[in-house]
Parts: sequence; C-alpha cells; structure tokens
Amino acid sequence: MNRMSQTSQEGMTAKKAENFDDWYTQVILKGEIADYSPVSGCLAYRPSGYAIWENIQRATDVEFKAAGIQNTYFPLFIPERLLKKEQEHVEGFSPEVAWVTEAGNSKLEERLAIRPTSETVMYEVVKKWIRSWRDLPLRLNQWNSVVRWEFRHPTPFLRSREFLWNEGHTIFATKAEADAERDQILGIYKKITEEYLALPGYMGRKTDSEKFAGALASYSIEHLLPDGKAIQGPDFHSDGQKFSKAFDITFIDDKGATQHAWQNTFAISTREIGVMLAVHSDDKGAVVPPWISQIQVVIVPIMTDENREKVLAEASKLYEGLRVRFRTKLDDREHLTPGRKFNEWELKGVPLRVEIGPRDITAGQAVLVRRDTGAKKAAKLEGLEEEVAKELAEIHHGLLERAKALLKKNTYSASTYDDLKKMLAKGGVVRAPWCESAECEAKLKEETGGKIINIPMEQRKRAAKCVLCGKPAAVVVNFAKSY
Amino acid sequence: MNRMSQTSQEGMTAKKAENFDDWYTQVILKGEIADYSPVSGCLAYRPSGYAIWENIQRATDVEFKAAGIQNTYFPLFIPERLLKKEQEHVEGFSPEVAWVTEAGNSKLEERLAIRPTSETVMYEVVKKWIRSWRDLPLRLNQWNSVVRWEFRHPTPFLRSREFLWNEGHTIFATKAEADAERDQILGIYKKITEEYLALPGYMGRKTDSEKFAGALASYSIEHLLPDGKAIQGPDFHSDGQKFSKAFDITFIDDKGATQHAWQNTFAISTREIGVMLAVHSDDKGAVVPPWISQIQVVIVPIMTDENREKVLAEASKLYEGLRVRFRTKLDDREHLTPGRKFNEWELKGVPLRVEIGPRDITAGQAVLVRRDTGAKKAAKLEGLEEEVAKELAEIHHGLLERAKALLKKNTYSASTYDDLKKMLAKGGVVRAPWCESAECEAKLKEETGGKIINIPMEQRKRAAKCVLCGKPAAVVVNFAKSY
Repeated sequence: MNRMSQTSQEGMTAKKAENFDDWYTQVILKGEIADYSPVSGCLAYRPSGYAIWENIQRATDVEFKAAGIQNTYFPLFIPERLLKKEQEHVEGFSPEVAWVTEAGNSKLEERLAIRPTSETVMYEVVKKWIRSWRDLPLRLNQWNSVVRWEFRHPTPFLRSREFLWNEGHTIFATKAEADAERDQILGIYKKITEEYLALPGYMGRKTDSEKFAGALASYSIEHLLPDGKAIQGPDFHSDGQKFSKAFDITFIDDKGATQHAWQNTFAISTREIGVMLAVHSDDKGAVVPPWISQIQVVIVPIMTDENREKVLAEASKLYEGLRVRFRTKLDDREHLTPGRKFNEWELKGVPLRVEIGPRDITAGQAVLVRRDTGAKKAAKLEGLEEEVAKELAEIHHGLLERAKALLKKNTYSASTYDDLKKMLAKGGVVRAPWCESAECEAKLKEETGGKIINIPMEQRKRAAKCVLCGKPAAVVVNFAKSY
Repeated sequence: MNRMSQTSQEGMTAKKAENFDDWYTQVILKGEIADYSPVSGCLAYRPSGYAIWENIQRATDVEFKAAGIQNTYFPLFIPERLLKKEQEHVEGFSPEVAWVTEAGNSKLEERLAIRPTSETVMYEVVKKWIRSWRDLPLRLNQWNSVVRWEFRHPTPFLRSREFLWNEGHTIFATKAEADAERDQILGIYKKITEEYLALPGYMGRKTDSEKFAGALASYSIEHLLPDGKAIQGPDFHSDGQKFSKAFDITFIDDKGATQHAWQNTFAISTREIGVMLAVHSDDKGAVVPPWISQIQVVIVPIMTDENREKVLAEASKLYEGLRVRFRTKLDDREHLTPGRKFNEWELKGVPLRVEIGPRDITAGQAVLVRRDTGAKKAAKLEGLEEEVAKELAEIHHGLLERAKALLKKNTYSASTYDDLKKMLAKGGVVRAPWCESAECEAKLKEETGGKIINIPMEQRKRAAKCVLCGKPAAVVVNFAKSY
C-alpha cells in the first residue's frame, strides 16, 4: 500500500480520456473519497465518500418508507445448511462465499457464510411471522454490508469484495400484487439515480442466463461508464414462489386454503458511487452532484494581512446565512493561498465555490464558481441564498443532461452481426434484435466478449431478424461489453 | 426454534417480579420487537425493534455531527497480523473472535477476523491521512455491526454475538484536547439515554481490571436491571498513545517535531434496547418511550356495523391531523374487536392510544390512554395535537422519573464488608469506600460474584476506610452484581 493519499494536494496527473483506470483511481484517492484498506477488495470510506452513501441511503429510505416498506436487521451469518436450501441460489453464490470456520479457539461444528445476500437467513425466520393473508403484504428492507469474495481484480466501488447496499425483501399473497411492485421500486431507483446521482441508464429485464440466482426474472438499470463499458446499477428480482416453496413460506388465504407466498427482492449499492464519480468527474478531480455531496458550498475568502479581519467577518456572515439551507464550509485556513484552496476543493468535487474578497465586499457581491463547468458569475450578497439554490439546481440539471447526452451519443443500432461486433469493439450500448435463444446469446459472448445487458420493457412491434442467426426476432435488446 | 411469535396475540404469561428471564423473553418475542435467528446469539430485528435502533442512531448521529465528528466506513475484516499489533488489545479480544479461513473453494493464506471492534483496521489506514498538526483533530465514527463470539448463554440485546453500535475513533494532537472530549461524549450519551431511552445510570471510571483492552482509562454509564444486576451502557475510552505508538500514528507539530497522537474511542450499542425494555416494560408487555418508538400514537376506532362509516371517517380525520406531527397508526382492521386491538398495542408497547367511538364524536372528544400508567383521559378533538404532544412528553418524563426512583431505591451504602455482601446478595448498586488495590477488588469478585462497576468521577473528600481491608480509602465506588 502506498502513501498516495498524502500526495492528494499535488493534484491529478492521469487523464480521463487517455488512461481511464489510473484516472479513476486518482479521483478516488486524491479526491479523498476512499482509500485502500489492508484487506484486498475492501474499501476504507473517507468522510466525504461515506457522506455520499448516507445521502443516497437517506433519500432512498424516505421513498421506501413512504411506500410502506419497513426496515429490519438480520444476522451477518448464514449457516451452511440454510444457504443450501434453494439449489440455484447456492450454486450462484457458493463460489464467492467467505466462510467462518473458527471462533475463539474452537472449530465450529457447521461453517457459517458471511451473507452474500440474506434471502435464506431471513426467510427461515420470517415464515414464522406469517399466518394468514391478513399478515401480507410483508415488505421488509435492510441496509447492511454483504461480502462476495470475487477473485477478479477488485476496483474501488465498482467491484468490491465487501459492499454496502439495501436489500428489499417483500412477500405478497398474490402474483398480481408482487408484479405490481416492480414498477414502483424501479421507479424509486430511477428517481434516486437521476434526481440525486444525476445518472441516466437503460431499464430492462435481464436474460435468463444473467438473472439473479434463484429469481424467475431480474430487472436492472444499466449505466454506461466513460470507457465504453456498461455496468449494472440497481436491480429488482421477481422471485415468484421459488423461495417460498424452498422455505415453506405459506399463508391461509381468505377461503381457508394454505398457499405459498409470492416474493420480490431489490437492491441499490455503493457501486453507484463509483459509477457517479466515473461519469461526472474530470481531469481536475472528483465532481459530485450537489444533492449527495457532503459539502455543497465552500466559501473561500480572498484576503491579505491588511484586510483579513474585514474579509473574514464578511465571509462568516455569508457562512451563517448559507449554512441554514446548504451543507456549507468556510475555508478560513490561513496557511494556504486561495489558489491552493481552489485546487483542493476542485479535487474533492465540491459543487459550488463562493469567493469573497475586498473588492467584492465594496461591490456588495460574491463570485460563484461552478465545479462542473468552471463558469464564474458575480452575485449580489443580498439574496445570495436564492442564487446559490438556483446554481446548485442548475449544476445538478447540467450534470444529468450531459450524462444523458453522452449515453445517447454512445448508443447505437445494429442490424447485422458485423456492425454489432464493430460497435461493441468501439464501446457503448448497441441496440439490435435478438431471437431469444440462449445459443445466440452464448455465441455473442464468446465471440465478442460483450453480452445482452438487458431487454427494454417497452418493445415496439416490428418485423426484425435476430442480429446473430437471422431468425425472426421477438425483441430488440441492449448489447454492451460490461463490467 | 419454536413458533413463539405466532402466539404473540395470546399475551404475556410470565410476571416481571416472579420470573424476570422468561418475562423479558416474552416482552421481546410477543411484543414483536425481535425474534431468534438460526444462528445462536444473533438476533433478527423485527421492524418495531429496528425502528428503536434507527431512532437512537439518528438522535446520536445528530449530536455527533454537531460536535464535528464525521462518519466513515471501514472493512468488516481484520487480517490476523493487524489484530496482533497491540498486545493488550489482542489478548482482550482473541478468545471471542470469529475467523474467516476460507473463501469460495480456497483456503485463505491469512485468517481474517470479523471485527470485534475496528481500532486496528482503522488506524493502519488513518495514519496515512495525517501529516501535520493541521490535520488534527480527526474525529471519526462508524455505525456498523461487530461480532464477539461469547460462549456464555446469549440473551437478546443484552448479550449477543453480533450487535449493532457506533464506534467513535478520535485523534488529537495533545493530551489536553483528547481529555476534554470525554465530558462532551459522555454528555451526549447521558442525553441520549435519558432524553430518548428514559434510562438513568451511574457515570464513572472503570477500574484497571475492567477497562477496555488497550485503553489507559475507560468510563461508562452503568444501568440497573430489574433483577438487581447492573449492566454496562455506553462507554468512552482514553487510549492515550497506546495505539498511536503501536500503529505509528504521528504528526509534525507546529515546531517541526514528530509526535505521536492522542486517541479516544467510544460506543453506544443495541444493548440499550434490551435495558430499556427490561426497565420500562410490565406484565402487559413492552413499554417503549415515545421518542424512540416506531409508532407513537395508535388510533383505535370503536364501531359497530351501523356506525362504521361515520366513526371511520372521524378516525381518519384524526389520523390525518396527528400523523403530521407524530408517528401515528390508524388501526382500522375490521376482523378484530377493540379489546383485541388494545391488547395487541399494549403488548407492542405503543406509548399512547387514542380511542374514538360514536359517543365521543357526539361529545367532540377522543379518549387518550397512556401505555405506561393505563391512565385514561377525555380530550377535545379541537386542539388534540397539542394534548397528544403534552401526553407524550409526560409519558417520557414519567418513565424517566420512575426509572430514576427505582435506581435510587436500589442504591445502598455500605461501610462494612458484611453489609456489602448482604446488599449485593439482595441486588442493586452498593456504594462503599475502596482502597484502590487490585487485591481487594479480586477478593470481592471471588467471594461475592459482584464487582466494582465504576468509580464516580466526582468524589467528596472524606476520611473513609476500604470496606474490604480497612486501609485508608481514596474513593467511594459503585459495587454490584453485573451482567
């Protein structure tokens, strides 16, 4: 482990367009978002990075609670025999489970999995809470950390062995009710990714080979990274009665008959922080959208030894006015020049900088500088709060629009396999018809390294031929190389 | 595992005064606060139980952030070599560490501890974030779960193998600054325990034999359980330079010299939920103080088939008025009698019940029933929000005052060892002089099963003799049998 974080104030050296991987690492380390830890694949979140997660979590939690979902907490450990209860599920997860085998000086009688996800440990308990249809729906959620011991090269936030997430687990009496939840939850995730993270994405159903281990159908929002690779964002799984049958989750219906319940699961994770940083940040460092940034506004007083007292007094007044409405920082450090401060806050991604110096005070103004565009603008001290609110909203809007335009620009249509291959090699999302056969899907994966990232839920009726085999195609799907 | 939770509506059978252990278990299971899980010693938190923790967490987090403490997140895993870096620390924790030794199908090269506490994994990283005195203080916190694989009989909340907590980790340039934090943090914990949990306690310093593994000095708030045993609540540890020397946490001071930093750690855990339930609950079930209860007010309409519509309309109006200010539930279930509903909400501990029936509507009133005292009171519908606010505040105040009175009543003074032994056997806290020798402390432990729970920080000067050996005693301490 190097002492990279100690060099943070030296600024970025890698370029986003030239070396995405190095650039991404610098954004996180030099921007003081997170640091490596002594355990490979597990991150140490620095305060500004963890605050981003807290803000995502809070916004999502408000939506969940308004929808009637309640929070719970279940054990970190899952006994091996439980994890094995649903066959597809255990096959999907066992290659990357971390196992506790010893406690103190004793060997455990049964291995305990560190939860890679909590279906099995939750359902074994929750089934006792349900007797009749009156106890349903039971819509639970937990915010926790899970461990998936991937053996591929870890990347901060994007591919971690431990990550933080929500895991929603909901139980319904009927398939119709369970199905109706899908659009509500995906709608919440779309709102969070767009209105907080300023991240657009393509929503759709995963193919059978890509769905969650144990689900009937999986749905996702897929983002596009600046290196041309797609990456899966929040997801939703229709589990049908798979787990309710494996775990015996039954209820007595209104006619007195015993039925198995219908279930869904859904998640948004700290991976979103990585996607957000990768999409918005630039060669000066991190760019963090205002509604999720730990600090929204930083005030930098421009002062000399002669006017220090006067400028600081005015800057403090400004701070007291702004901090009521915005997460505001007054950078009154004396040993750094304004230029050094500008660089530092740019590196850290604070959305808006407010500069105030003696000439500004005379003119009754301050200077607002946007992190995303660098645009400068003088604004009257009188009514500055309103101006700051407007700027922050514009920064958010600008980031989202730019990201949407980028996604659109990097989305192509292909009608031949040759075109598809060329486009996938270039990077981006390619839309093309598919016959829904697993053979064509596997062939594409093998020959191009790309895959079907998802199948848009709304499909226009059209006569098209599978881009791979030429047979009639029922759907147009999103292809991409993917993380 | 039995299907106990399915019998929850059958009500309590155990009595608090007769069989505390069974009663406590019934309060938790029948009150639907938590359930057993398939892993012994690890709880499944039901929504109302987890909401209590969310409310404690939120209130504490607001205080921490106002004090300038920032949240972070560090890995769940600690490599064995790191855990061993501070000798006293590893000796204190290794008997109860859960070890990950395998991942997927591979054996790990080095065992990974599931964090029992995060000093070692945090300090190995955090030391890189500090260069000069300007980077200090660095005051960090994380909300997470930790695992201590105790081999004693687990008790829900009070003694769990996995529990949720905050772990504060703060780093200062000088001993004076580090010491000054103690009263601030203990003040926050006192505020949270009293103003939210309605729990009094005795604050004091732990003896050397009872302090945290690796600390110079530990401080605690000690609560008293209804069975006469004391139990340690939130704590604060002055770690001095022990960890900064073991982990090389240094900074360059304002004269250019390299120094080791001064550190503190502090925690409040889900154990408080258990103490709170044990102290306040009664033979009807759980009693939860209003500011931490998931539901603060439950409205139960009293209706027959003839007046259902009219009563429900009025109850809904009431609900709409109350839910803006209070966490309110309208219990409009049709298949249960009001009596069954009363029992259920009493079992679950909702602080205030609002009854409204046809005669109340005619009289323009509702009936407020306190969970803690059972007191009933009619209140005008006009201005009911104010009346409810007043009642909730009185419930909180009443719970705290009763708990304080109980603590006082069960606190004794002893001047002879015989008296001390008799009082300890009876249960409660006993104040008596102690000579500060480890021999007397060990003797008491061996002969009575009790211990010194802590040493009050404010000591009056007086000439007293050690209750054990008769030599001059420097301090009066709190003795008790303890969890």
